[in-house]
Amino acid sequence: MTLNNDHVILGVDPGTTVLGYGMIKVVNRQPVFLDMGVLTFKKEKDHFARINAIFNFITSVIKQYGVKEMAIESPFYGENIQSMLKLGRAQGAAITAALQCGIAVTEYAPRAVKLSVTGNGNASKEQVAGLLQHLLKYKNKPETLDATDGLAIALCHFYQGRKTVFSKGCRDWKEFLAKHPERIKTGR
Amino acid sequence: MTLNNDHVILGVDPGTTVLGYGMIKVVNRQPVFLDMGVLTFKKEKDHFARINAIFNFITSVIKQYGVKEMAIESPFYGENIQSMLKLGRAQGAAITAALQCGIAVTEYAPRAVKLSVTGNGNASKEQVAGLLQHLLKYKNKPETLDATDGLAIALCHFYQGRKTVFSKGCRDWKEFLAKHPERIKTGR
Repeated sequence: MTLNNDHVILGVDPGTTVLGYGMIKVVNRQPVFLDMGVLTFKKEKDHFARINAIFNFITSVIKQYGVKEMAIESPFYGENIQSMLKLGRAQGAAITAALQCGIAVTEYAPRAVKLSVTGNGNASKEQVAGLLQHLLKYKNKPETLDATDGLAIALCHFYQGRKTVFSKGCRDWKEFLAKHPERIKTGR
Repeated sequence: MTLNNDHVILGVDPGTTVLGYGMIKVVNRQPVFLDMGVLTFKKEKDHFARINAIFNFITSVIKQYGVKEMAIESPFYGENIQSMLKLGRAQGAAITAALQCGIAVTEYAPRAVKLSVTGNGNASKEQVAGLLQHLLKYKNKPETLDATDGLAIALCHFYQGRKTVFSKGCRDWKEFLAKHPERIKTGR
């Protein structure tokens, strides 16, 4: 459904100390910048309170902006086993929030996000942020690169959806699904 | 609040292919067996669908049995980084379900659970299961040891709560909290 008009895509990079997010809206089959930012956990010192804050935040963003799809970054490596467990819990809270709202979730490896947005899987965060501003023409640069990370994931999901649709010779998802009913699956 | 009468404690061992759970009820400051079992994910082949199933299951168990506290096992090592991320997501869904119900969550290392229940941090799963049946006197042995893992976590949480209260010279949590108001903290 990524190419439907007015469709809002949320990209999330949930960490254990900060969560970056970005949103794009599909207008005339093109991605348009909607919003981005970070959720920091200064107030919530307790690990569990942070997890709960992530669930509440993602739920409220989905409802406020009418988000239709969510994409998250899924790293393949981490500092250590314990940090990956904690990262997984943070991701689990964000994923659950989306699924409980009936929103489909897709995950992308960091390299896939960079490749999709910049054409270079090894691009730096600064390069990604620079290209995003060029492509989506937002005025105010965010204070941290966590926000652009989230936005990059949303844009990556849009590109992947468009690639899937166009590669099958369809104009949009409606036509694609009409031609490929076997690709329809429910989130639950 | 672990020693309050009729208090239900839920122990959960959430994995990515099976979730073990067990519950005890506090009666006259003693733990009484309530229920245990496993949630398997044969139907949900998709990783995200499993995460959602965990959230829904924990939410329904909490409501059905009037659970007041939840304890989970928190491993310190795993096969690899990817398996820990997926385990973390499964745990995140279970933790979020409890927090969204306003239930406090406590985590215990596997060794701490074994030590608390059997007096031996290196006890086998079979030894833990055997001692649980002796202590809690339930009739039907569960088919898998995942269920007794969950029950052991619930019993560990009960013992830890009792130890905290008794070590301070109090009869129960009510008296403990009256004497130590600084220990009251909210989950959100």
